[in-house]
Amino acid sequence: MTLEEYIELINKKLDEYLPEDKFPQDIFKAMKYTVTLPGKRLRPIMCLEACRIFGGNIEDAIPTACAIEMLHAQTLIHDDLPCMDNDDFRRGKPTNHKVFGEANAVLAGDALLSFAPQIILNYSKNLSDEILVKIMKEYTQYAGAYGVIGGQVVDIEAEKNWKNNVFGVKPEELLEFIHTHKTADLFKLSLRTGAIIAGADEENLQKITDFAHKLGVAFQICDDILDVISTFEEMGKTIGKDANADKLTFVTLYGLEKSKCKLCCLLDECCDIMSDMGVKTSVLSDIISGMKRKAGL
Amino acid sequence: MTLEEYIELINKKLDEYLPEDKFPQDIFKAMKYTVTLPGKRLRPIMCLEACRIFGGNIEDAIPTACAIEMLHAQTLIHDDLPCMDNDDFRRGKPTNHKVFGEANAVLAGDALLSFAPQIILNYSKNLSDEILVKIMKEYTQYAGAYGVIGGQVVDIEAEKNWKNNVFGVKPEELLEFIHTHKTADLFKLSLRTGAIIAGADEENLQKITDFAHKLGVAFQICDDILDVISTFEEMGKTIGKDANADKLTFVTLYGLEKSKCKLCCLLDECCDIMSDMGVKTSVLSDIISGMKRKAGL
Repeated sequence: MTLEEYIELINKKLDEYLPEDKFPQDIFKAMKYTVTLPGKRLRPIMCLEACRIFGGNIEDAIPTACAIEMLHAQTLIHDDLPCMDNDDFRRGKPTNHKVFGEANAVLAGDALLSFAPQIILNYSKNLSDEILVKIMKEYTQYAGAYGVIGGQVVDIEAEKNWKNNVFGVKPEELLEFIHTHKTADLFKLSLRTGAIIAGADEENLQKITDFAHKLGVAFQICDDILDVISTFEEMGKTIGKDANADKLTFVTLYGLEKSKCKLCCLLDECCDIMSDMGVKTSVLSDIISGMKRKAGL
Repeated sequence: MTLEEYIELINKKLDEYLPEDKFPQDIFKAMKYTVTLPGKRLRPIMCLEACRIFGGNIEDAIPTACAIEMLHAQTLIHDDLPCMDNDDFRRGKPTNHKVFGEANAVLAGDALLSFAPQIILNYSKNLSDEILVKIMKEYTQYAGAYGVIGGQVVDIEAEKNWKNNVFGVKPEELLEFIHTHKTADLFKLSLRTGAIIAGADEENLQKITDFAHKLGVAFQICDDILDVISTFEEMGKTIGKDANADKLTFVTLYGLEKSKCKLCCLLDECCDIMSDMGVKTSVLSDIISGMKRKAGL
């Protein structure tokens, strides 16, 4: 399947899984609003593609792939809140709390954190209980304090304080931690669960995790670069905010040119891992070349 | 085991499960703060006791019981936020956001929603994958939009608007919905998972669910009554707030005397179900008589 075919399939399934008419409608509308905003669907695509390249049936990974997109939407809803990044726009539309109010946005995020694994449990008809338990372990690990939430906590604290060796660690280490957990961990969750559903062995699981880590960090560096060189129209959110706020990013710490070099290296390493695994995937290659193109490499 | 012995066991295990020294410490401290505030531990006690009365080994239910207390703490942290109930005190101590700030309180709640099921998955050594999947299904159902979050959404909307037939339903039905989901659903989760771990049959599972529903609604009516007749010292939170805000509660809708009658009826029905099941449990009887005593019945 191509990237476009994957996106179409994922959008159709996300729409199917999320009800609109259940009482209380407010919460389901708020959940659906952010989940179904047009997006690149990178995480669910990676999950499906990992399943495919290791010989699995992508049908079996669809609920997990969609659940990860819902989890991603949850992080966006809460990250945009006034008490966090206080963003008014996301994917070119008003943020969740701007449309549904702050209380409903908090609750929509909370609801998604349970709704997403519920989708995996209720719709993965062909998966054994053993595989479901493995996936739930991955999900809870990467979604929580050891994963994406841990990354967000440090990101928020670092935003105000990174020049003062907050948490007693150097800015370089802080940034590494933030990128690893805030971004790469959902990439790992996506690629690892896809591989687990396909029954990949431990060696391949390790390689795809390494790939996910590098791609995730590269993605965040690319995002930092785009915050400097892109426009609102291209990104669908407020641009230049990080630089204006003197936020800890790859670009503020290392400068634009060095950031581009690091991005290029990481993406090349991703390609090396793919060659090493001996898998053919134009989809993952397209994601990598898309990032290079956007960052002007 | 007595109520006191259960509380001691649960507090010891909660402390064990929640790390203090993991990086970033801020989030683990914030999670631990609210989870370990002194509380009645009703939900985990119900889980352990349901396991015991249906012939299970309570050791097997401890991770699930503690996870439900963590989930309960999550609902308290988010319910107390400025954009929701805006409460400054909980269990006699400053609320989570008062101590750790609003962003960390949102994230601590988010983290608990993944940490709680992770505890179940990682520490329930004697449970089969089949039972674990069943418990995860229960957890995600009652924790999410179909459960406690659905109740909270309606509660918040009703607070401002209940006299105007908000959501197009009568206040009596709204109140029933709120009590069922905001309170009784976590009682159902507790008692049902305990019973499932013990291998209870479908008939007993239905009976314990019915018991949980009645006890949960009774608990909320009791809470509404105490908001009128109790003091800050007894409750550990601001008192008279609901009545002052003309909030939709059992007491504002039906008056104090009728609320007491309803409470009494529900608790008697709970006793009938226990007799019908033929189980002996001084612990659940003590919880029931404790509610009667507090409400002055």
